Amino acid sequence: MALSPYKQLELEWKRLHALRGAVSLLRWDAAVMMPRASATGRGEQLAALETECHAVLTSPKVSRLIERAVAGQASLEEWEIANLREMRRQRDHAIAMPISLLNKLVRATAAAEAAWNEARQQNRFEFFVPYLEEVVWLARDKAALLGQARSLDPYDALVDEFSPGVNSDIIDSLLKTYARRLPGLVRQVIERQLVTPAVSLSGSFKARQQRSLINEVLRAVGFPFDRGRIDEASHAFTEGVPGDIRITYCVSRQDPFVALLGALHEAGHALYDEGLPQGWLDQPVGQARGMALEESQSLLLEMILGRSRAFVRYLRPLLEKNLGVTGPEWSEENLYRLLNRVRRSAIRVDADELTYPLHVMLRFDLERRMLDGSLPVRDLRDAWNEGMRQRLELVPSSDAEGVLQDAHWASGSFGYFPLYVVGAAIAAQLAEQMRRDVPTLDEQITVGDFSGLRRWLRDSIHSQGARLPLAELMETTTGKPLGATAALRYLERKYLETAA
Amino acid sequence: MALSPYKQLELEWKRLHALRGAVSLLRWDAAVMMPRASATGRGEQLAALETECHAVLTSPKVSRLIERAVAGQASLEEWEIANLREMRRQRDHAIAMPISLLNKLVRATAAAEAAWNEARQQNRFEFFVPYLEEVVWLARDKAALLGQARSLDPYDALVDEFSPGVNSDIIDSLLKTYARRLPGLVRQVIERQLVTPAVSLSGSFKARQQRSLINEVLRAVGFPFDRGRIDEASHAFTEGVPGDIRITYCVSRQDPFVALLGALHEAGHALYDEGLPQGWLDQPVGQARGMALEESQSLLLEMILGRSRAFVRYLRPLLEKNLGVTGPEWSEENLYRLLNRVRRSAIRVDADELTYPLHVMLRFDLERRMLDGSLPVRDLRDAWNEGMRQRLELVPSSDAEGVLQDAHWASGSFGYFPLYVVGAAIAAQLAEQMRRDVPTLDEQITVGDFSGLRRWLRDSIHSQGARLPLAELMETTTGKPLGATAALRYLERKYLETAA
Repeated sequence: MALSPYKQLELEWKRLHALRGAVSLLRWDAAVMMPRASATGRGEQLAALETECHAVLTSPKVSRLIERAVAGQASLEEWEIANLREMRRQRDHAIAMPISLLNKLVRATAAAEAAWNEARQQNRFEFFVPYLEEVVWLARDKAALLGQARSLDPYDALVDEFSPGVNSDIIDSLLKTYARRLPGLVRQVIERQLVTPAVSLSGSFKARQQRSLINEVLRAVGFPFDRGRIDEASHAFTEGVPGDIRITYCVSRQDPFVALLGALHEAGHALYDEGLPQGWLDQPVGQARGMALEESQSLLLEMILGRSRAFVRYLRPLLEKNLGVTGPEWSEENLYRLLNRVRRSAIRVDADELTYPLHVMLRFDLERRMLDGSLPVRDLRDAWNEGMRQRLELVPSSDAEGVLQDAHWASGSFGYFPLYVVGAAIAAQLAEQMRRDVPTLDEQITVGDFSGLRRWLRDSIHSQGARLPLAELMETTTGKPLGATAALRYLERKYLETAA
Repeated sequence: MALSPYKQLELEWKRLHALRGAVSLLRWDAAVMMPRASATGRGEQLAALETECHAVLTSPKVSRLIERAVAGQASLEEWEIANLREMRRQRDHAIAMPISLLNKLVRATAAAEAAWNEARQQNRFEFFVPYLEEVVWLARDKAALLGQARSLDPYDALVDEFSPGVNSDIIDSLLKTYARRLPGLVRQVIERQLVTPAVSLSGSFKARQQRSLINEVLRAVGFPFDRGRIDEASHAFTEGVPGDIRITYCVSRQDPFVALLGALHEAGHALYDEGLPQGWLDQPVGQARGMALEESQSLLLEMILGRSRAFVRYLRPLLEKNLGVTGPEWSEENLYRLLNRVRRSAIRVDADELTYPLHVMLRFDLERRMLDGSLPVRDLRDAWNEGMRQRLELVPSSDAEGVLQDAHWASGSFGYFPLYVVGAAIAAQLAEQMRRDVPTLDEQITVGDFSGLRRWLRDSIHSQGARLPLAELMETTTGKPLGATAALRYLERKYLETAA
């Protein structure tokens, strides 16, 4: 018997899943294993695979099957209907993007990333300008085409590609609330923390020892070592597929928490990917529900869990055991203070939970203005420095520490930065509900038992895949719409208490 | 202006090259990096890519382009004509193999490889029988289809797929010569070596020290560390593409030469791949000229070079430096004796140069009889043990040490074993010519200078890619047809001298 149109689509996506898994592994290898001089050939391999994926999504056959499957939707199960919805979304995005524009973007961003590296080393924004201009032009075309195809505002179309269901309204509303409350809160917390300042760590920590610490913590947290790897790399990231998750961490000899909390962040992604619905792993509905939710899972582990009193209590003896450290700066109280120290700083990735959204506000504002043409790229540095002065009361000491600190724009990732803040808000809202549902969570974590946390996240979030739209998932899970309320409650309670 | 049919074909093969490069990297990763439990997903990725490659090769578009390019062949350059010839060969092979048979083979060999592993551990051939039967059936179909399509004897069609230009006549003639000369030679050498036996090594050698030894030797030999990697793995192999070659070695704590000579073997492959014609790397004519020539390059380094007096002289101080070894068994004379000790043994991969062909004769005989149906798989063990008794005067102590020692048949690689012997004969013939052309070769090697060797191989073999048929390449390079003469001269001179 011939397969139904819907079942034929499942086969097409099964193939896509395999091709995308290959892409992800090639990316992981390029960052962790590949000799640098081999980049050109790898670029060709990735381009060939991306072209193939695009060809599947844009084939007349797939579009015909989608039409027929939609017409026969009444006979499908709930998960199948959701799957078909996600297939259509992917198909619409792909069809809206001509392969010529995709290829131009690949080349322009590859050139811009190299130029960005160079410019950052030379501390010279001017060098980067023409490359970024080219990327902005192409991103604008992309936004316009995607927006048109999906009836969305162009910027929202870019956000939606990363994280379906997130848009400027949601972001604006979150950021406005933060803009009202955070500056005062930051001032208040910094003042209070001055009364009992944390003692900084001293010494140097061997990579091998840091690795054994990370292994022990990740085993407890539940990273699937039998179906994944963790490796040291020059930056922390997650690649791979459920069943073979690859995470990395990046070592600082001076500060063991860079690697540990970075690994915990990636472990958050890994647990999400490993918890996705088993029967749907090779289908769109079996994927993560967008990058905002992805970031919520990593921030929940890195920020909310990893800097909690309970976790610090669990961690302290492990630090002593694996790093061989003792002394007053390693007391539970001091570590807690250290990990939750609030400071206005120039670098986003080093920012604490309270000042982080201020960094994002700046970028959100600047990238929207670059895309709508009101901010010429050549004026970006001045706008950056002025924005930093206003929002964080400091001016970067150099381009490298300022406008050149992030690779996102060079990579063409416009519309991504706000998702960190949306992710943090989601994380806080989920954590609040989790604490309600698992009242002994802190006691469990103190003794290194993360099964309650893992089970709650798996049941509520991971195993849902992309079945529900984000808004609905948040309502179902927490009983409230996605918003800043829980996040502000969490931040105020924690940081005013710490500083007390 | 529209591209010519030939130029369009070059673009199709450029894409194929990228896809095959991805396949090779995924294979490398599966063997070196991937957690075992992740095998299923990797299998899906590999199958998707293989299917894609097969689809390119069998597309009506490619066949039409080939017809038109052949018609206009008069206007092409020599390399382009050779490239077109190789394209046709690949296309013919792919068209002869239905994708359904390919997929059946993938599944049957995956099952047979797992069963082989199991059977070997349990030392129980019977368990393996039904799996191997299935693979033999499918290999027979494959051989028949390929043979028909290419007007070749079925067995020769399998050999030809691995190594174009090699056939049963060449193999038979080599093996017959060996069958006449080797048994007597083996007896004579073993007797003579008994007079001054080599002293065996004792002690245990750290993996880290073996690695530093390998690094030093491979740097001298010219392994491209900036465009390749070398890693420890459970078996030694080469994957990757020119520009990103991945080789592995396998460590024995008791015998540092297992890893070192294994790495040297793979470095032979790597030098070949890195020396292929730069302008043709993504085209068929820019690939290696088949597996027999591939094996000649690795055997030349592992066997002829790596066990020569000059190399042992170069190596001795490096052993002392990297492994910290001293004592009489590490003298140049004893090491040379050790590395060239001739012994009848049950295991092919441990065999010396003189007895190795005897192992291959057995397999060549058995695999042809399995394929033509005259040897039922269930009788394979008895035939094996009888063949070992006749050829090597010993009976394996177990199935694991006997009929189950190699994975080739489980993987469906019928027609491969003889290529080791053809490769060894080619290696000896090339080495003889190289010594003539580079009279100071031994002096160079003694001081760790491998540039003369590398240059000769690159100019004569590597940079030729697949431009010439194998027979022609041998004639051009050595002035003589491919045969056993040089090999026998080499073996007799070396082993009767050693033993003297």
